[in-house]
Amino acid sequence: MRARFDAVLSAIAPVDLNLVPAGQAHLDNLTKPKGSLGRLEELALQLYLVQGGSAPTADPARVYTVAGDHGVVAQGVSLYPQEVTRQMVQNFLNGGAGINVLARTAGVDLRVVDAGCLGPDFGTHPALINGKVAEGTADLALGPAMSEEQCLRALLLGVELADQARAEGVRVLGTGDMGIGNTTPSTALYCAYLGLDPAAMTGPGTGLDDAGVRRKVEVIKRGLAANAAAVNSGDALAILAALGGYEIACLAGLILGAAKNGQFVCVDGFISTAACVAAWKLAPAVADYVALAHASAEPGHRLAVEKMGKRPLLDLGLRLGEGTGAVLAMFLLRSAAAIFNTMASFASAGVSTAE
Amino acid sequence: MRARFDAVLSAIAPVDLNLVPAGQAHLDNLTKPKGSLGRLEELALQLYLVQGGSAPTADPARVYTVAGDHGVVAQGVSLYPQEVTRQMVQNFLNGGAGINVLARTAGVDLRVVDAGCLGPDFGTHPALINGKVAEGTADLALGPAMSEEQCLRALLLGVELADQARAEGVRVLGTGDMGIGNTTPSTALYCAYLGLDPAAMTGPGTGLDDAGVRRKVEVIKRGLAANAAAVNSGDALAILAALGGYEIACLAGLILGAAKNGQFVCVDGFISTAACVAAWKLAPAVADYVALAHASAEPGHRLAVEKMGKRPLLDLGLRLGEGTGAVLAMFLLRSAAAIFNTMASFASAGVSTAE
Repeated sequence: MRARFDAVLSAIAPVDLNLVPAGQAHLDNLTKPKGSLGRLEELALQLYLVQGGSAPTADPARVYTVAGDHGVVAQGVSLYPQEVTRQMVQNFLNGGAGINVLARTAGVDLRVVDAGCLGPDFGTHPALINGKVAEGTADLALGPAMSEEQCLRALLLGVELADQARAEGVRVLGTGDMGIGNTTPSTALYCAYLGLDPAAMTGPGTGLDDAGVRRKVEVIKRGLAANAAAVNSGDALAILAALGGYEIACLAGLILGAAKNGQFVCVDGFISTAACVAAWKLAPAVADYVALAHASAEPGHRLAVEKMGKRPLLDLGLRLGEGTGAVLAMFLLRSAAAIFNTMASFASAGVSTAE
Repeated sequence: MRARFDAVLSAIAPVDLNLVPAGQAHLDNLTKPKGSLGRLEELALQLYLVQGGSAPTADPARVYTVAGDHGVVAQGVSLYPQEVTRQMVQNFLNGGAGINVLARTAGVDLRVVDAGCLGPDFGTHPALINGKVAEGTADLALGPAMSEEQCLRALLLGVELADQARAEGVRVLGTGDMGIGNTTPSTALYCAYLGLDPAAMTGPGTGLDDAGVRRKVEVIKRGLAANAAAVNSGDALAILAALGGYEIACLAGLILGAAKNGQFVCVDGFISTAACVAAWKLAPAVADYVALAHASAEPGHRLAVEKMGKRPLLDLGLRLGEGTGAVLAMFLLRSAAAIFNTMASFASAGVSTAE
């Protein structure tokens, strides 16, 4: 299993920067002042590079909302009871959640993945992937959340999702998460991977009060101490196993698989970005293939994003997860691709250029 | 004509804030932590208020790209030759400009309006409205850009567009502009309406170098001095006539008409926001009906927006105009309406609420 995963990592290559001049020249020749479509032009160029210099396309697009449960919920880190993870998966399958609404509006296909929910499989549903690695993680405050083998299984599940999507012609993937308590493992991962301070990084999640946030900081500090060997090893896989979760590892695998396949990824907010950091530490070239969809309202997100040297596309105060920000960004990506492919040039439109 | 216009202003009423509790309670009962969809929830609530408490709808939506020429171009304030205004109108009619691409992608209807271009009418085209008030403005550096009567005609043209859209069932309007040189009148309007400093407010427009920006500052200062009587009068109509342009006055009228009709308006960037400031000074309640679509890359925009107490929805470094930012925001508005109308409630989905 480790060998299969290492082969994925080895197959990830940076985009070919030799394509930049041709892509940029194409954009600069369209009927607008140079650069005047700002980040839409940057997105179009990135998509062009990811897709190897062909006419960029943002469709078909698919978002994966990946669910898992977390043993650390026993420490009182969430306002919501743990059964809400399962209830929300059912809500996704019934079409009533925020991600259902926004994916439909954006014309994005939705898949719901059970990577590690408590309880039995969810049965059959056309949008459901039963990929349960285990019924929830162990409590990271006490020791490793997952074994390395469990973590590898979740990573390879994500890789397989990307491969299946490629086989079905999907060009752009979005990441989404569901897991009561999962801002806690995400925050712990940011601290371990990026050397950030738990007190600065820890926020209210779905709505903890100040006392709750202070308790959550202590839980994260205990988790980092209980997993000090993994944290201090600097080994990206060991850190993910120790502090992550099944949905987080699956999303990291999805991002790695997408980069291997030349698929573009719109990364959602706080939890998805933690998965992206894990993928980036495992294979730095993934940075070429991802856009951070939005600046999460969870306060630590800004600090983590700065460490990655990325700027999120949207800043709408979102903190729902599920992939809600990712599908909004997929609309921007579609707009960017359409600009690249369908705007007239100065010559074709008979418009005078600047003096 | 003045009486007709005054009747429009008198017919603009603030939204009914008594509707806020019912709208907010509806949003808070949907299957997400309270407020976790951030500005999408704020947008949904604003649309609900604008539409009088019925299920909010963002469709049909239509963007108006309004064109006009500017006498002040004689002062060398733009990199592009003046004929580009006409060439770009032709590009809009041929479907090749940025606004065509983005409106198609967003599913927004586009109308192109000649409010005051140099040269003859553009002929007939299903998307074209021939509303030419005059062949370009006079040079604002030397005196009033328009007479008050010309300005009123452009304002009432915009009101008529909003009324026609209402008759056709259009619920959401977007503003867009085309006019070589029109960051200069827009900057002058911001300075006159908001007491802002020309040196701080003046930017490169489509790409002036530093020397060009300095020259533009001097042109704007001369324009404010040449029109000191209007500026010092504090009369919003006199200021718009003295320093504005036909497309800007038409867009101000469109915004006023929309507010009168209970239509929501997505206001594009630097030029459209100047039109919005004019409308807001003429009838302060228009603030209830508008969202600023995006933070323009033109540096003075931020200062003007702060004075209005508004926060733009997007910040993508756009500086093209045409309504390109407005149609992107219309997609967000559609997403917000869908959240309000089609998400499941905690009760209907059987999801537990926070403790």
